[in-house]
Parts: sequence; structure tokens; C-alpha cells
Amino acid sequence: MRNIQVSELDRKAVEDQAVEIVERKGIGHPDTICDGIAEAVSRGLSQLYLDRVGKVLHYNTDETQLVAGTAAPAYGGGEVVDPIYVLIVGRATKQYETEDGRELTLPVGRVALESAREYLRETIPELAVGTDIIVDVKLGEGSGDLQDVFGEDGAQVPMANDTSFGVGHAPLTETERIVREAERALNGPYHDDHPELGPDVKIMGKREGDQIDITVAAAMVDAYVDDIDEYREATKRVEAYVADLAEGYTDREVNVAVNTADDLEAGSIYLTTTGTSAEQGDDGSVGRGNRANGLITPNRPMSMEATSGKNPVNHIGKIYNLLSTDIAEAVVTEMDGIRDLQVRLLSQIGRPIDEPHVADAQVITEDGVAVADIEEEATAIIDERLANVTDVTRRVIEGELSTF
Amino acid sequence: MRNIQVSELDRKAVEDQAVEIVERKGIGHPDTICDGIAEAVSRGLSQLYLDRVGKVLHYNTDETQLVAGTAAPAYGGGEVVDPIYVLIVGRATKQYETEDGRELTLPVGRVALESAREYLRETIPELAVGTDIIVDVKLGEGSGDLQDVFGEDGAQVPMANDTSFGVGHAPLTETERIVREAERALNGPYHDDHPELGPDVKIMGKREGDQIDITVAAAMVDAYVDDIDEYREATKRVEAYVADLAEGYTDREVNVAVNTADDLEAGSIYLTTTGTSAEQGDDGSVGRGNRANGLITPNRPMSMEATSGKNPVNHIGKIYNLLSTDIAEAVVTEMDGIRDLQVRLLSQIGRPIDEPHVADAQVITEDGVAVADIEEEATAIIDERLANVTDVTRRVIEGELSTF
Amino acid sequence: MRNIQVSELDRKAVEDQAVEIVERKGIGHPDTICDGIAEAVSRGLSQLYLDRVGKVLHYNTDETQLVAGTAAPAYGGGEVVDPIYVLIVGRATKQYETEDGRELTLPVGRVALESAREYLRETIPELAVGTDIIVDVKLGEGSGDLQDVFGEDGAQVPMANDTSFGVGHAPLTETERIVREAERALNGPYHDDHPELGPDVKIMGKREGDQIDITVAAAMVDAYVDDIDEYREATKRVEAYVADLAEGYTDREVNVAVNTADDLEAGSIYLTTTGTSAEQGDDGSVGRGNRANGLITPNRPMSMEATSGKNPVNHIGKIYNLLSTDIAEAVVTEMDGIRDLQVRLLSQIGRPIDEPHVADAQVITEDGVAVADIEEEATAIIDERLANVTDVTRRVIEGELSTF
Amino acid sequence: MRNIQVSELDRKAVEDQAVEIVERKGIGHPDTICDGIAEAVSRGLSQLYLDRVGKVLHYNTDETQLVAGTAAPAYGGGEVVDPIYVLIVGRATKQYETEDGRELTLPVGRVALESAREYLRETIPELAVGTDIIVDVKLGEGSGDLQDVFGEDGAQVPMANDTSFGVGHAPLTETERIVREAERALNGPYHDDHPELGPDVKIMGKREGDQIDITVAAAMVDAYVDDIDEYREATKRVEAYVADLAEGYTDREVNVAVNTADDLEAGSIYLTTTGTSAEQGDDGSVGRGNRANGLITPNRPMSMEATSGKNPVNHIGKIYNLLSTDIAEAVVTEMDGIRDLQVRLLSQIGRPIDEPHVADAQVITEDGVAVADIEEEATAIIDERLANVTDVTRRVIEGELSTF
Repeated sequence: MRNIQVSELDRKAVEDQAVEIVERKGIGHPDTICDGIAEAVSRGLSQLYLDRVGKVLHYNTDETQLVAGTAAPAYGGGEVVDPIYVLIVGRATKQYETEDGRELTLPVGRVALESAREYLRETIPELAVGTDIIVDVKLGEGSGDLQDVFGEDGAQVPMANDTSFGVGHAPLTETERIVREAERALNGPYHDDHPELGPDVKIMGKREGDQIDITVAAAMVDAYVDDIDEYREATKRVEAYVADLAEGYTDREVNVAVNTADDLEAGSIYLTTTGTSAEQGDDGSVGRGNRANGLITPNRPMSMEATSGKNPVNHIGKIYNLLSTDIAEAVVTEMDGIRDLQVRLLSQIGRPIDEPHVADAQVITEDGVAVADIEEEATAIIDERLANVTDVTRRVIEGELSTF
Repeated sequence: MRNIQVSELDRKAVEDQAVEIVERKGIGHPDTICDGIAEAVSRGLSQLYLDRVGKVLHYNTDETQLVAGTAAPAYGGGEVVDPIYVLIVGRATKQYETEDGRELTLPVGRVALESAREYLRETIPELAVGTDIIVDVKLGEGSGDLQDVFGEDGAQVPMANDTSFGVGHAPLTETERIVREAERALNGPYHDDHPELGPDVKIMGKREGDQIDITVAAAMVDAYVDDIDEYREATKRVEAYVADLAEGYTDREVNVAVNTADDLEAGSIYLTTTGTSAEQGDDGSVGRGNRANGLITPNRPMSMEATSGKNPVNHIGKIYNLLSTDIAEAVVTEMDGIRDLQVRLLSQIGRPIDEPHVADAQVITEDGVAVADIEEEATAIIDERLANVTDVTRRVIEGELSTF
Repeated sequence: MRNIQVSELDRKAVEDQAVEIVERKGIGHPDTICDGIAEAVSRGLSQLYLDRVGKVLHYNTDETQLVAGTAAPAYGGGEVVDPIYVLIVGRATKQYETEDGRELTLPVGRVALESAREYLRETIPELAVGTDIIVDVKLGEGSGDLQDVFGEDGAQVPMANDTSFGVGHAPLTETERIVREAERALNGPYHDDHPELGPDVKIMGKREGDQIDITVAAAMVDAYVDDIDEYREATKRVEAYVADLAEGYTDREVNVAVNTADDLEAGSIYLTTTGTSAEQGDDGSVGRGNRANGLITPNRPMSMEATSGKNPVNHIGKIYNLLSTDIAEAVVTEMDGIRDLQVRLLSQIGRPIDEPHVADAQVITEDGVAVADIEEEATAIIDERLANVTDVTRRVIEGELSTF
Repeated sequence: MRNIQVSELDRKAVEDQAVEIVERKGIGHPDTICDGIAEAVSRGLSQLYLDRVGKVLHYNTDETQLVAGTAAPAYGGGEVVDPIYVLIVGRATKQYETEDGRELTLPVGRVALESAREYLRETIPELAVGTDIIVDVKLGEGSGDLQDVFGEDGAQVPMANDTSFGVGHAPLTETERIVREAERALNGPYHDDHPELGPDVKIMGKREGDQIDITVAAAMVDAYVDDIDEYREATKRVEAYVADLAEGYTDREVNVAVNTADDLEAGSIYLTTTGTSAEQGDDGSVGRGNRANGLITPNRPMSMEATSGKNPVNHIGKIYNLLSTDIAEAVVTEMDGIRDLQVRLLSQIGRPIDEPHVADAQVITEDGVAVADIEEEATAIIDERLANVTDVTRRVIEGELSTF
């Protein structure tokens, strides 16, 4: 029997608090680039191990460091002057002895590079991999006794090897949704139509009462911007697009401001050659930005755990952060009457990870709904998700679950 | 007039919540080593600029990356096999033109190395700097227009150049105090008497109701441990010491466990040559561990900001995180009747940093005390601290304020 | 008037010496890879400066270092396990103020990377640039007062800024020709027809009296070799091809041996995945292999100067090594009666480089020809070539002159 | 029976040639620093293997790369601005299974760093290791089947595994002796009395007929030089010292010039903070400077082999270059009547290294002495030295034989 507790959350729903702050660092932000590389390397290694050994061996690659380059952006197209430098750091199993005694050598360094480079080409297409950005790697070996089992026939649920903690929430507030969806839309359909918008889009949402301010810092790509007028139009276009998108998520008043630090008179604007501020002075590293749900939410409890790059088979911090978010979303999707839900999972060393020390769901119900009314159903959903904990591992490896 | 708001905190005091989790990564933990190096480099650069130019110029060095080494610990003294690698990353002003037209060249690379190496020698004395650990540096130049003014005659309060957020709390709960003070004591007086305890001490506190569990992961130094019996005694000694210390902070029941992952039978124990797990497989980086108050507290709102290594003159995130903590502590020290206080500071771009968009103090009062009773006095304290905001900068540069 | 001296060479022609040793490290040898990268970077920078500034600015990039990777070759196609690491090292001018006062920023780091990567793709096509080999760069700035003039209207012959020495010879002996041409043919037409032969072909020629032994170490590419029999055939094919080629250059007896270190029984053979031994354990650097004429000839005076990567406008060592070889070849091509010719150029600091301290041609004439018979014509040729010294610079930049 | 041939050398003695050029890069020259580090690392690893395993295992560390720093020298004491970066590159055995089945892990990375750092501290004392110069290391593993035997009971003479060539000469000419001894004296007793002279002393000797020009480039150390007058005196002092020393080696006319590139008027002088040009713009690497006899002698056949850093047990190129020099010196020391002697050793793959394919001594005898007169005795000396070839290995490991 799992230790699942459902109780009342002893605070106002974030939606009802007086002041709310939310942030998302877009896909091209230096910290998010590192998160993305670390997670791409993790997927690449998982896949390598599954292909060669039939199970995921020990690795941990949650430490990518990015050192900014220098660039000389210019209307119509500038250039990178000194390349960005990225160092992939971590541990991975390099030798494996099969059951029939063959010694396999696993090309973890090369696979890490391939994964990182492919990820960069997809997400920051203006960045010439190899010349605008150097990708280097230092993968050591970890402890040899941590060769874990995922994908094997009869794979067991792994044991927790650490005291760790994950936390998730649902539903998102209006401000949270606007921040998250605006970045996704800007880096998705909007970018497809407007190549002048680079992937380094940072969105800050601030709500005071019923007034929502959305501040967007958007790196423009110089090859698609011919002069200051086109730049001004490009920022206006982003403003209008985000304002329009926001209306779909709230009835509150929304103000959108793009690139507020610009000084158009002085020509001091957010123009880049590659679409990321990493080209000029902004370093980055893993775990410094978005949490596992894609947001930074100081109004809510957060885990400090850097989820990206960690091994999804046995890293309990990664699994519990993703799973608690998944559980919270599942409960809110499948049930009515919940205004705010916070799910916390605390591991117990030496126990299977589907049996946490405690799974703790704290809830603020809608008017007219009591915690008791929802306890049984919520518990059942939580129990079912815990039972399928290895599903999180599979979805991470297949790239279905984002960690940033 | 500053916008200072005092209101009731809409949740239970953390001390009164059912479950509480607290963590502190000790001074020798790989993440904390990076925090410490980044902050030492920051102090070194600030001092360099003050000495040469009379004011602190633009820099930002919050990105140290540590790549673990390999070691072969052994009773009585083992050795490092492959060195740890540390890369100091950031931006710093390298050229400066004085008012009388001289072009100064500032040795930021060398000073960064000196600062980092001196810090390592002080905090991890068993680690031979240069052979057990390589310290490398990549400092680029940032934006040239950010040459800021601290220490000059008639220095002004700087303007906020970003929307940023800081949060602080006071008083600490019993569990928080135990976790923080245990690490400090172990790495202070205890270590002085017991050199077998290395600086990589990680402490996790978990309280459920009135039961507090303190889990300590303590790296033992092999040169001072001759066999498994001495190792066992060393862990027992730490257990007893922490248990004794905890009694001074709480009347609750406290259980202390040290190195729970050990398997003494199998000889799998936490023995190191240098006193840090960085010697074998544990990478680290800045901003991944302790917050500015020295703790990781998922029960409380936290800022994701990596405080260590940032410029204390103009980095609003660093200043507001330190200041909000400082304000919370000041209010609680100077006033009675407060059970839990949370101070949030939100910057306003383009305004002096002593005039935040909002300074928001949320409070849970003791029984019999109303928020209205304390509002005026608390507001006055906050106002006074805000007025002296540049004091934070000075204290950071002089090493009086810790960022981790 | 130039100081040109023609005299008799006080030794036997190398062709007539009892023992002769010659070596050529092929295009894919780790040292030659470094030479090639350094020279490609040099050409790239020269072109960059000509394009942007109209003249070649100061640079020196003669220090590429290659750190070998690890690979797991296998019949039918193996893989690189850990990538090769290449560090491009040197000095280059990064800032330039034009006559009209504009400050140009020159993307030397990025151009160095582009040049190196393009060179690698062309010469070692089996090597996946970026994943099988990481290319990194550290270019500092040199002395600012060395901004030289090539390509400008009215460009002057530069002054020698160092005491330096160049030496060249002609004609090549039979053994030298066989060694040089065999490598070129193997890496040219032969490779086009036989992709199983990788570019790392090292050829050693040893002549004792009239017996010439040619030893070839040839890296085979595993994707084109399915088993030990195919491997054996591939080496036999190279043997036959080189033996046939050698017949075109000599009437002496020639023995050719390929991959003599192989132990076919034990399966210890020279099989690679990428066609270069850099993939597994063989490091490399600039200036350690072939001299400017493409050969290592211990029977002849050689300059230690690393020619590859040096600035062809003002690096007197590079220019004089190439020019002395060029002069020797010109004299021998245009005149009859010379059996062996050695040309030495010695610079004079502070004088134009077309006026060496001494241009010293030492000659062994054919029977019946006296030095006096050829002195005048040889002097005229040397004088004319010295007068056109800047032609060497142009040909280097345009890639017409090889430095290795 | 060894194949030893003694014959007449078919050229004039170098001492009698019209023009002679000799160069020595002093101990503090960037290329020599790399040679010295590579050889120090080699000695350190040899000693490590002897201590732990009782024999020298496979390694090769002949690839140190130095990237210059930047410095701001100033009368009375300047400073390093950006540190020099040194990368130690090579292969070394990291794991070894003893006869009784224990798996030893050998700390080759750490020992390489220790050796390099200690060497730097001894030879370039003004250079603060760790802050003025960063020492990094990349040691891979080589081929596992090359675990060689030196120091073992009953150690055999190793087999040649490559076709390689070594060459040595004796006696040195007057110019060679002046160049070599001047550098040694300047970096020895002279430096002890005159700390303003740094170790980066480069000496070029040019003899035309009976006129010897010695050009010294000498890095002065700013902490010991207070103004331009002291600088001028320091260079004059070196000039006088070298001129005086030269008189002890020759009766020819000797001109000495120090720091000829200086422009005292313009203040453009050779002033450094650390005593090496590596602090500002001069990169370096192994094998680019002095040959195994400490000189660069384009008048004589030279081997391109980089001797420094190679394994002295089994690297035939290193052993034969040192041994041929040693043999030449021994013959000339023990016998009279030899004006110039050139010894060449050519290996034979698969044969013990004391049985070269050919040991070829070419000699120019004094007037009245025939080659036949000396053949027997010379052959005996060569034979005896070859028989004791492993003595070279021992002397290299013990630091008695210099490789640069």
C-alpha cells in the first residue's frame, strides 16, 4: 500500500494571490540551450545503451556549461566574431561486459557530441555548429556499481538511492499559461512566419490583482532586419501577437511590452546574428532556468533539482519532479472541483521508487467542493500513476516529456 | 516614498506545517565549491577594480563549472588519480580609460585564478591546488556600456536594469537552524578537532510533525582513517555531535543518521582522499545548491537566481536576494510577535534600486498580535534598509555577507 | 646589388652517397594534419584581411595541437569512440582602425575554425568533423606594431625582422622522388579508385648503394574492408602500385613493403575507421614532420622552422624556406649540367627581404661542367627570383605553394 | 656481430666550411619550456612506473603545447594579465594488472602535473605556477600491448618497433661551443648574480670565415630593472660576459650583440615580467627547437625526431639520437686525430636495438691521420656503447642526459 495523503493546501490559490510572478526562458536562452543540450545528450545515451546493451546503463549528464562568444550583428546580416564554447560535462559508462563475456566499448563521447549538435541545428538554425559554436565534451566514468536496468525483460522498478523530493502543480494560472504558451507560440508558428524572431525569447509575467504585465525580451535576427524601422515593426508585431494570444487565456487586462531595454534613438537594440544572446556575453548552464514544468514560479514551491541531463531510469530527483507534475496534471484533467493542486513526492532510500515515503497532494477546492469529496478519486489517480512510474522513464527517453 | 506593503501571509508558518524539508550542501560539496569560487572571484575582481580604478567596473562571474576527477582513496592515505577540472566562466572589463586618458589593462584572468586558488586552499586544504585540481579560466568581455559606479565619491544608487525578484525569510525554523548550524559547526570547530571529517558535508533535514530526521552525508578523509573501525567511529562521532547540537535548537525528537548509503560489510563507504566527492565522479556548478540564505527550502518561495559570482554593485537579482533576507532578519531581530516573515522585493526597470516596484512583507503573527500592530515599525525598518541598499554591496565585497 | 654567391658543394651528391634516407608523412598523418590545418588557417586569415582591409595584417598560426582519440575499427565499418581534439593556437589581429577612422572587428576565431573544418572535410573525408574530431581555437593578439603591408597599392618589399635561414635543394634524388610521388599518387588517383586506402600513408625510403627499400605504413578504412583477406589484398595492391610507380623513377632495384608491423595471424593490423592513426593514440603537431619541400631528408641540411601556419608576408623563415626551394628548382629546370644544388638564404635584420645577407648556391656539377660555366646564368636566375620575392607570398595565399 | 661501418666523411669539417649557422633556444624560450616539460613529465612517469610496478610501462608524452599569455611589464615590476596556458598531451598506461592479479590504477594525470609544475618552478622562478601559467593535461591510453620492460630483473634489450634514425656529431665547432656554453652560463652562474636576466635567452651564432657574430635575444625581468639606463647596462653586461666567455673557445674575432631589435628611443625593448616571451604572444611546442645535443645546426644532418617526452625504454628514435651523440662524443674524447665525426644509427624492425641495421661513423681526420688508423679503435668504442644501450635509458630517467 502506497502512502498517499490528500489534504487541504493552507494558502490561497496562486490565481487568487495579490501578486504573482512567472518567468520562462525561451528555447534559445543560454541557460535553456544548456538544458536542451543536456537532455538531448541524455536521450542520445539512453538510446545508445538500449541499442547496444538492451538496457540503460549508468550516466548523468546534467552539467553543460556555455561560454558566450562575441558577435557583430548588423542590419541585413552581421557575423559571429568569436565562437560560443560549450562544454558537455558528466559521467557515463564506457565499458560493459555482456553476459556472454564480450567487452563492449560504448562511444559515449561521440554520441554526446552528435546529440548536442543535432539539437543545436534544430533549435537554433542560424547558429553554424562548429564555427559559430564549438561543442566540447568531458565525460568521466561514475561509480561502477550503478549499472541499472531499464528496458530489460522483466525490468524491475528501481530502488531509490537518495532522499529526494519532487513537486508539481496544476492547473496553471492564467499568467503561467500566457507566459508558457506565448514562448511556445513565438518559437513555433510565429517563428515559421517571421524568421526575424530568434529563439532567445525570455518572457516575464507579473500580475498584480487583475492587471497582467507581460515583458518579452526577444532577440531579433539581423539577416531579416534591414533597418531600425523594420526592427521597430518586428517588435510591434511580437507585442500584438502576444497580446492577442493572451486574450485567449484571460479576461484580465494584459499589457505586453517587448524589448523594453531598447534605446532606439541611441541605436541600442536587441539585434543578434544568430538569434541568441549567447553570441555576445551571456553565458549559460544547466538547471539555472525553467523548472521541469517549463516555468519559474516563485509563488510556488520549487525543487532546485536540475532535471535536464539526468538519467531517467534511476535519478529519483528527475523522476519525481516529472512525475509529480504529471500527477497534478492528471488529477486536474480527470476531475472537477480543484482550483489549485500541489503534489509532492518524497523518496525513501532503499525502497522501490513507486513506493515513496510520502505522496502528498495538497488541494484548494472550488467553492462547494470539500477535500473529502475528491480524496478517493484523487488517491486512485495518484496510485495508478505511481504504479506506472517507469512510464516516465520511457516517455523521457522517447522525448515525449520535456524537462525544461 | 517607497512602495512598502505589509500584509498577512496566507499560509501556515513553515514551523507549523505538517511536513518540512530542508537541505544544505556543505562547503566542500561540488556545487558549493563552485558557488564559493564564483563568489571569491567576484570579490577579487571588485577589489581589483577598486584598487586600480577607484570603482567597480562591469563583470559577472557566476558560471564556474567543475568536472569531477578520479581518486583512489585508501585507509591511511590514498591519492588523486586524475585531477578535478574547474573552469571559471564569465565577463569582466579588461580595458579602462581613466579620466586623464590613460588606458589601463586590468589583469582579470590572473586575479580570477588567484582568488579561486586561494579560496580552494582555505576551504579544502587536503586538495593540492594545481595537481589534484586544475583551475582554468575563460573570461570574455561584456557589454562596454555597463561600467558602473561603486566607491566613487558621490556614488549614486544604481538603476535597476532588469525586472528581478528577491525573497527572504525569517526566522528560520528549528529544522532549518539545525541543518544550517550543523554544517557550520562540522566545518568549523568540529573539523578543527577531527581532521578526518572532510568539508563535503551534505545535510538533509526532514520534519514530519514533531519528528525531525537529520541525514548527514559526510566525506571522510582517508589519511586520518586507518581502518573500518576508525571509519565507523568517525561516523558515530558525527552522529553524536549533530544530535547534541540539535538539542540546543529544538525540544522535538531528533534522529541523526550519517552516511546511510554505506555498506560496511561490502566495504562500500564514503571515504575520500581530499574530503570532497568532486574527486570521484561528482560534477558541480554555480547556483545549483544553496540559496542566498545558505539553505534549500522547498517549503518556502525561492528565487532561481544564482547569487554567487554576480556583480554586487548592479546585479539587481543578487542584491535583492541578499537584501530581502537581510530585511527579514532585521525585522525579526528588532521586533517581537512575528512567527514567520516573508519579504519580497520586485525591481522596477529604470528606477533606482532603493525604490523597488514593491517591497512586500507578508507576516504570520504570534497569537494575540495583529498585523496592524506591527505594520508601522516593520515598514520603518524596511524603509531604512532600502535607503542603505549600497551597504549590501559593500558587505559583499568585504566578504561579510555569504551568498551560499 | 644582391649578395649572391655560387660555389662548389663540398660533398658528394646525395644521389651518389652510400646510404640515403628519406621520409614523407602523408596528408592524413597526425603531424601533417596539423601542418595542413595551420596552413589552411593561415590562408583563411590572409584572405580575410585582404577582403576586409585590403592588406594582410599581422598573424601567426603555426601551432596546431592534435590530441588523439580512441576508435573501435571493425571489418565492414567500426566507429570513433572518443573524438580527436584539435586546438588551433596562434596570434591574429582582431581590431583594425581604417584610414577613415572606423574600427573594424575581424572574426579571426570563426574564420580559423571555418578554414580548419573545410580542410579536414576535404582531406580526411571519413572523419565526421564535429563528432569524430573537435576543433577548438585559442588565438591571442600579438604585438600591435606589426601590421604589415601586402596587397596594398604600392606595397613595398617588407623588411627582415629576424635573423633567419632558409635552405632548398634540387633536383630530388630518385629515392626522394619515389617517396614524394608515391604518397601523392596514393592520396590522389589511387585513393579515388580504392577508397579502402586512408590518407594516413607514411612512406620511408632507404637506399643503400643501388638497393632502394620503400616501406609504406598505410591506414586502411574499415568500411571498405570486409575481412582479413580483403585487407591482405588491399596491402598487396598498394605494394604493387608503388613498385610500379617506382619503376618510372629509377632503374635501381626497388623493394616495397606495406604495413610491415602487421601480425595477420594475431589479427593485429593497420585497420582504421577514419583513415588516420589520429583516431587511436597518435597525437600530432605542426612542424614535426615534412619540411617545406614535402620531405624529411636527413642527408641534407634542413631548417627546423615550422613553415606551415606562418604569415607569408613577413615571416622571413617561411618565405626563405619556400623561396630557396623554389630557386633551386628553377635553376635546375632552366639549366643543364647540375647534379645537386643547395641554395641557402640568410636574412639581414633591417634590410628588405629581397636583399638577403647572403644567397648562397652550392652546386655539384655534372662531369665536364665547371662551376664557372654556370655561375652567371645561375646568378641571374637567383637574382630574378629574389626580385620577385613577394610572388612567394601571393602563391602561398592562393594555395599554389605547399608548405608540407 | 654488429654492423658498424667507419668511413670518410665526404665533406669539409663544419669548422672549415665558409659559412656556419648555429642556434640555441634557451631554457626559458617557449619551445624549450615545452621540451623541458615534456621531458620532466617523461621522467616523472618513468619513476612512477618503476616505483609502483618495478618497470617502465608504455607512455609517450612528447606533445606539450604552450599558448602565450599577455603581460604588462613595467620598470620595477609589472604583471601578467592573462595567464599562459600549457596543455600536456600524450599517452600513458593507467591500469596495470600485477602478476598476482591485483589491478593497479596509476595516477598518470596527477604525476604529469606535478612533474611539469615542479619543472616550471625550478627553471622559470618568476612565473607563478597556477596564476601566471595554467597547466592542463590530456593523457589518453595508447596501445595496450606495448607494456615494456625496463628495470625488471633480467631485463632484455628491447626490440626496435619502427624504422628510425639517429644522428650525432663531435666535436662541436667553436661557434657551436660558444652558443651552447653561453646559454648555459647565462642561465647558470650569470643569472645567479644578475637576476635581471630571465631564462628566455636565444642565441644565434653565425660564422663567416673567421668572423663570428653572436646575437643574443635576452628577456630582461622588470622587477630588477628600474629604468632605461639600467636596462641598457643590463644588455651591455650580457654582451661583455658573452664576449669574454667566447674568448675562451676561439681565437677568431667575435662580435656579440644583445637585443638588436630594441629601439631604445621609442622605448621598445625586451622587458618582461616573468623572464620569458611566453608571457606575451610567443607560443611554443615540443620538438620545434634544439635537437638532442642542445643545438640547431643546419650545417649538419639533423633528425626531425622530437626527443623530449618520448619513452626512453622503447622509443628507438629518442634512444638512437641520444646514443649517436653519446657515441660521437665518446669516440672523440677517447681518441685523437679526429676533426669531425658524424655517427648515424639506423634501426632494424624486429631486431634488438643494440643491433642496428647499420651504425655508420663518418669521419674527417686530422692531417696525417688516415681513416684506417682509427677504424679499429672507433669500432670498438661504438660496439661497447651499443652493447650498453640500456644505459641511455637509465641516464635519461635519472636526468643525467638532456634531450634539449
